[in-house]
Amino acid sequence: MNYRAVEVAGEYVASLDNGADWREEIESLADKVEADAAWFNAMGAVQDAEVWFYDQDDQEYRSVAFDEPLEVAACVGNVARLDGERFAHTHAVLSRRSGQALAGHLNAATVFAGEVYLRAFEEPLEREHDEVTDLDLWL
Amino acid sequence: MNYRAVEVAGEYVASLDNGADWREEIESLADKVEADAAWFNAMGAVQDAEVWFYDQDDQEYRSVAFDEPLEVAACVGNVARLDGERFAHTHAVLSRRSGQALAGHLNAATVFAGEVYLRAFEEPLEREHDEVTDLDLWL
Amino acid sequence: MNYRAVEVAGEYVASLDNGADWREEIESLADKVEADAAWFNAMGAVQDAEVWFYDQDDQEYRSVAFDEPLEVAACVGNVARLDGERFAHTHAVLSRRSGQALAGHLNAATVFAGEVYLRAFEEPLEREHDEVTDLDLWL
Repeated sequence: MNYRAVEVAGEYVASLDNGADWREEIESLADKVEADAAWFNAMGAVQDAEVWFYDQDDQEYRSVAFDEPLEVAACVGNVARLDGERFAHTHAVLSRRSGQALAGHLNAATVFAGEVYLRAFEEPLEREHDEVTDLDLWL
Repeated sequence: MNYRAVEVAGEYVASLDNGADWREEIESLADKVEADAAWFNAMGAVQDAEVWFYDQDDQEYRSVAFDEPLEVAACVGNVARLDGERFAHTHAVLSRRSGQALAGHLNAATVFAGEVYLRAFEEPLEREHDEVTDLDLWL
Repeated sequence: MNYRAVEVAGEYVASLDNGADWREEIESLADKVEADAAWFNAMGAVQDAEVWFYDQDDQEYRSVAFDEPLEVAACVGNVARLDGERFAHTHAVLSRRSGQALAGHLNAATVFAGEVYLRAFEEPLEREHDEVTDLDLWL
């Protein structure tokens, strides 16, 4: 396990725009506050969602699209540099009217309403290709 | 997207009372520490739960009640002022013995055991009616 | 409800080792930074998982094993002393390729990739037996 002590650079609450993309909104927040490393939590609701599952054998992401309104019951993620841009690695747990939960890596989702807490760190995080997983990991 | 830099006013860990209401306990914590804005995480177990799903077309909450013991696998939320009171906007992911996950806006739940981390901010958050979503949103 | 104001002792980001145990990695991080109390968030993917559900009537944990790759959509937990060791009380929401979510108390899981934010507190937390729930609780 690799770890790093971090110092806070700033902390923020944000309200996401109805109709915008969930992940792009978080990346836009990171851009505005110039956060090259951050941890975030979020919650709210989306009008649809595209969730990814990583196939650990084939080392490819598999996409599942949900074209329906969903609650965002929990959203956990972090911001790092990837290929020169700020990337918000975003996981989310979504739910249907029945209470059924869906979850995964959130690639895209249309915001209905979203509330975010983002904690930016002084030390930048940089994603680099990892041989074992074929993922872009930091540290 | 609207955002605000916040300053921490205090941070707290709490253990919720068996038999009490999950959300009321968090609001009681906010009252005790006089937090008019806060972000929280929690986990534990409940004896039952009432979960809400927001119908984005009809703009009404739909309730689903689970009258059974459930783990609280993840609980994410925030505290803001709403109609002059402290309101804990609480989302949760719950689970059954089979591992099946349920999730949504947690209106009420009877605590079995609960552990909370709450981070209070200096700047109050106030919920106000939003025309587009018919929800009470902050910022 | 019992609560305590806490002071931060340090905050850390960590990347978990592929093939290691998810919870042990977090406990190893707590050991390295000498955190006798901490709150954490994590996300990533695992190769398998053993999830526990607490039977509130029989007051016994029931185990469910998932021998398949899963996303860790959300992981929330805390570190405290238990029987003289650092214990990471770990809850997680996992997901399958279909997007189906599973959740519960995460006893063990083989890391595929894991990203953690851990916030250590100055004041130690100690778990002690609770008569009502037959669980080891803090505060």
